[in-house]
This record gives sequence, structure tokens and C-alpha cells, in this order.
Amino acid sequence: MENIRLSESGSSVIILDQSLLPAEEKYIELKTPEEMHEAIEKLRVRGAPAIGIFAAYAMAALAHQMLKYKPISGCCSASGTSDDVFMQEMSVKGDYLKASRPTAVNPAWAVDRVLHAARVEMYKARQADPNRMNVNAGVARLAEAVRREAFAIQEEDKAMCRAIAEHGLNEVIQLGGKKRKEEYKEDYQESDSIGILTHCNAGPLATSEYGTALGPVLLGAEEGVKFRVFADETRPLLQGARLTAYELQKAGVDVTLICDNMASSVMKRGWVQAVFVGCDRIAANGDTANKIGTSGVAILAKHYGIPFYVLGPSSTIDPACATGADIPIEERDGDEIREKFYAKPVAPEGIKCFNPAFDVTEHELITAIITEKGVFRPPYSF
Amino acid sequence: MENIRLSESGSSVIILDQSLLPAEEKYIELKTPEEMHEAIEKLRVRGAPAIGIFAAYAMAALAHQMLKYKPISGCCSASGTSDDVFMQEMSVKGDYLKASRPTAVNPAWAVDRVLHAARVEMYKARQADPNRMNVNAGVARLAEAVRREAFAIQEEDKAMCRAIAEHGLNEVIQLGGKKRKEEYKEDYQESDSIGILTHCNAGPLATSEYGTALGPVLLGAEEGVKFRVFADETRPLLQGARLTAYELQKAGVDVTLICDNMASSVMKRGWVQAVFVGCDRIAANGDTANKIGTSGVAILAKHYGIPFYVLGPSSTIDPACATGADIPIEERDGDEIREKFYAKPVAPEGIKCFNPAFDVTEHELITAIITEKGVFRPPYSF
Repeated sequence: MENIRLSESGSSVIILDQSLLPAEEKYIELKTPEEMHEAIEKLRVRGAPAIGIFAAYAMAALAHQMLKYKPISGCCSASGTSDDVFMQEMSVKGDYLKASRPTAVNPAWAVDRVLHAARVEMYKARQADPNRMNVNAGVARLAEAVRREAFAIQEEDKAMCRAIAEHGLNEVIQLGGKKRKEEYKEDYQESDSIGILTHCNAGPLATSEYGTALGPVLLGAEEGVKFRVFADETRPLLQGARLTAYELQKAGVDVTLICDNMASSVMKRGWVQAVFVGCDRIAANGDTANKIGTSGVAILAKHYGIPFYVLGPSSTIDPACATGADIPIEERDGDEIREKFYAKPVAPEGIKCFNPAFDVTEHELITAIITEKGVFRPPYSF
Repeated sequence: MENIRLSESGSSVIILDQSLLPAEEKYIELKTPEEMHEAIEKLRVRGAPAIGIFAAYAMAALAHQMLKYKPISGCCSASGTSDDVFMQEMSVKGDYLKASRPTAVNPAWAVDRVLHAARVEMYKARQADPNRMNVNAGVARLAEAVRREAFAIQEEDKAMCRAIAEHGLNEVIQLGGKKRKEEYKEDYQESDSIGILTHCNAGPLATSEYGTALGPVLLGAEEGVKFRVFADETRPLLQGARLTAYELQKAGVDVTLICDNMASSVMKRGWVQAVFVGCDRIAANGDTANKIGTSGVAILAKHYGIPFYVLGPSSTIDPACATGADIPIEERDGDEIREKFYAKPVAPEGIKCFNPAFDVTEHELITAIITEKGVFRPPYSF
């Protein structure tokens, strides 16, 4: 069952509420732009590629809802403005969805892409009749274009995750001095288990199917390559404990949960051969925004001489950002640190908190960026 | 009111239960060796110097309890074994207290010190009468020696903390290019506020009065030197959130609570001029065991060019450990990560956890070690 999908009727989106995992596996249905915005903001759906897919389906559902509106005379006449009304309304709703979280580039990318698909239909309709340039494509045709594009985004994401998983798996096997997966498997011994440290969650829940950072591990599990994963719990919202540990345990992968501040100890003990992390936005120079704490893990990896890999679809690269300094960093409510998840508050009342949701890992700290297109090494120039 | 003290009767120890802070300020009374052992193990009393002081008072209380035992004929005869029975019993109880937590050197140091004080009384009594070498000092005199030594340990700790605070404050003021506190205060502007990052809790609760790592900050607050402290929450047991934030807020110091994985972000923003941490054991070469995560903070500080200071009494130096590799690292129950403190478990049932309570920061990463004797810089050789 997909974690994010369009409902049967096409007018709502159904998601697995990730904020309740692992205690509860509950699917919720989202209909209004407000509910959709809230679902992203409150991390009911999260992970850069996943919120892109979700935003695309949200747009498809909102487009479908516009079918029920009766054409208003004047603006929906054959002289051509019902398409414009559709585009305007959808743009406004798209902007609202984009504003739900600022750091990841994916929701904006997905919204712009489905709107572009609708716009293409508008132009096609107009061009099909050169004598009547203002002819409408009609809401049904535009909504269908949005829906089709949303499905395409998810299908592409699956293919990209698969490709990323392949590239990442080959890379990490080569790290161990083996040339091919076959050679690895022939010589396999228990001690050959590959130690991976990951931060936050960039598995299937954050994307589709294989995930990005967890892709090589999950593909490896299918193909008989053994991994031993150390999952940072990832405070404050514990995506590592709640989601990565959950996904890897389900997939039968050897996973050990640690607190974020234990990464240095685990690396020092020689248990980590590579770090795999996802990404929310990659600047043109390779600087990468990802879950808060990622830059710290990268600095530790450099200190201990451990390769540090960023894995994500190429849509995560934002050429409009020259460097990481151009990426907006979301700051969230301090209550997430002070009291969220706990039986009782863990800090004194009124204590000041600083709660950035992301940080930027400088490109100098990144061994390679792995997208569906391959393994990119420094110097990066996207 | 002291956080650790001998009861009026002298036969029990009263402590502020730190495991309940900040929600509840509750004093508990401990009488049996089992209760005392449990109080250290469960972190009701914690912080390397504090568990040293506690162990000393615990020994004093246990010694006092031996007054009520009637002399047993034979072993308590004038021919001299009641002292031996006392020493033997106290040694066994001391070993039991020492075994409560393995990493900090202080409980062992304190137990050995009070036993030594009793032994000195034994020898004095014997030497006072050269004709009767087996004369007993008597349990009352030995117990009094233990009690006196325990008070001395706490008094010395206060003096040491004060000296550490002075040395640390001078050091950090000099970092800013000012020579003396007076000069600092004359030129003071809001922007001169000194940014400190600290990990775990090495304040008054962990020691006495000023604390160690928080000493310069608390002394500074009294003397008009402004600090702005970033407190790592310090998972899994959140001593930073629960204790450091609590102590600094009470003292009116500007404190901001962050999750451990946010330290890199805070440093990168230029908010941190120095890192101050406490210590549980310092090896002869300067390698320092402290709360898990300390080594990671040191690596980040080095990366960002921020001085990293270890503050602690000289009793924390263990010349018997040549390097950090000789320091035993306590591993605690994984439930502390999986479920402790939370309203419901945050990780899937049965998930494997790795939960080291401490790590070793290599001496190369330490700018200086500040004890009551002064500021020691590399190369360290204690």
C-alpha cells in the first residue's frame, strides 16, 4: 500500500500519518488546502521527495474539486477565461502549499511542474485552433493533466530511487575493494557486513519504494549484501528512532539505534564504513541542506576518515541557489525540544530554545553526491 | 541548602533527587548501602565530583551505623581486632559503592580517601602506645575520622570549584583580547557577551557551589561578566535540558537550550567563543572521559576553530590510566533511548540500541585542561 496516494474519487489525498509512527499506523484523508498545508507543516508527511509527491497529489485533488464548480458566465465563456481562473486558483493554492515548509525545494518543484503540465494543455488547446486563440482547454482537461503529472512524478521518483540505490550500492561495495556485487557475495563473510551510519529518515516513507539514503541498504538486503546500520535518533522529532528504525526492522536489516551524540563513539570504534544521508536542497556548488545535525555528522566523518555520501533525486538540486547561504533554513517551535513527545516537560518552564530544522553541509565535507544520474564527485557544479 | 549532606543523626545521607528535576525538587534520605548504590546508578546523584562527595558521606553514614553494634568478644577485644573488623566491613561497602558506575574516578578516589583517614587513626592509636601495638583506636574514633574526611572533601571541592571558576573566567576573558576582568567590565557592551557552549551538566548540582564547567559563567554572573550559554540537551537522560538549563535560569544567566545535533549550526553562526565541559576521568596524557557526545563537540569545535576547555578538579586526573583507552566506558540500558522520559515508546519494540554513557575526547582536541591548580596546555603529562 502506498504511503501517499490519491483517493478513489480523486478529490482527496490519503497518507500514512508519519507523526504517529511507530506506535500507530493510521491513514488519514486530506481534502482542503488547509489540511494539506497542516499535514506538511506538522510532519504527518515528511521527507523531501515525499512532500514533493504529496504536493503534486494535493494539487491533483484540488484540481479535481474544481470540476464541481459551475462555469461562471463571463469568466468561463468560450472566449477563454475559465482556464485562466483554474490556473489562477491553482497557483494561489500551490503557493500556499509551497509555504508550508521553506527548506526543501521539492514541494515548489512539484507544484510548478503540475501547473506547467496544465499550462501546456492550455497552450495545446489554443494552438489546435489557430483561428480562436482564446479557446478553453476546459477544467476537466487541465485537472486531468495535473493528475497525470502527479502520477508521473511518483513513478519517476520510484525509478530514481531505484537508480540511486543501484549507484549507492555499487559505490559502497567498491569502497570495500570489491569490484562487483557478485564478487562481494562470493567472498561474503559475516565480518564483511558493511557499517552505515544514517541521520534522520530518507527511506521509503520519505520517498517511494527504496528511499534515497536507505536505498542501497534495502536493495542490498534483497540482493544478499549485508549491512549493519546505525540510525541516529534525530532529535527533536526522532525520525531516526521512529521511522528509520521502523523501516529497517521491517525489512529485516540489522539496525542499531543511537542518540545523535553517540555518532562520534560509533565511528571511533571502527563500526562505520560510510555515512548515507538524504537531502532537502542542494545548491549549485554542492552545499547541501538536510535535517539538522547532518553537518555535524559530516564533520565527524571527515575527522575519522569515513566517506560521507548525500543521496537524492536530481530534482533536489536547486541551481537558483549558488551556495548553501542562499538556502532558507526553517526554524520551528521550541516546544519540540522542551516538551514534545515527553510525558512531562524536560526543561524548566519558559526556557529559551533554538530549533533550526535543517543545516547546511558544506560541499568540502561531501565525498560524493549520488543522484539517479550517477555518482558526482567534487568539484561540484550543477 | 546543600544538595548532598549528612543527616543530623549522622547515620544517613540526604540528597536532592536529580532524576526528578526540573519538574520536582525532592530530597530523599538514603540509609543502606543498597539505597546508596542505587542512587548513583540511577543518577539521583550524578556528576563526577558530586558522586565523589556523595560516596564520602555515604561512607561516613555507614561508619556511623557501626557504632551501634556491640563489640563482639574475641574480635573486639583489647588485643586489637575491632578496628580490623571496621576496616574490613567498610572496605567491602566501599567496593560496592565504587562499583555503582565505572567511568568516573571520583567515587573510588573518595572511598579510598576516607578509608585512608580511618587507617591513619588506627596507626596513630597503635603508635601512641609502642608497647601494645595491637591496641584499638575504636570504632567511634575511626567513624569520626571518616566523617571528618568526608566534610573535608566537600569543603575542598568548594574551594577547588571556586579556583577553577577563577582560572576559567580569566582564560575566557583573555580570549576576547582583554587582560583583566576590570578592563572587560569597563569596556563592556551588550555585544561583548561571551558565547559558551556546554554539554551535559557540570554545574553546582554536579559538584558544589560554582560547579566546574559552569563555574566561570556563574562567577562571571556575580562579577558582571556577561555570558550567553548554549546548553546541549544531552540525550538520552537530558542533563543539559533538565539540570544545566535549570541552574543557569535560576542564576539569571542567558541560556538557550538546543538539541545535541544543533551544536554545529550554533558554532557555524559564530555564536560560540569557547566550549566548556566537565570531566569524569582524565588520563595521564590528557585524554578525557566525559558524558557521551563530548568528543563530537570537541571535533566540531576544532573544525570551527573554537577553543575547547575541560574543567575539573585535579582529583579527576587518574595517573593509573596512561591514555583514554584505559578508561572503562559504562554502557547503560537501551531503554533510556527507546522509552525513558517519553509518554510512549519512540522506537519500534525490540529495536537494538547502543547506549554508552561516556566517550573519550583525545587530548589533541583539547585546548586546555583547567583544574584548581591552573590552566594546563598541551603537551599534557600528569
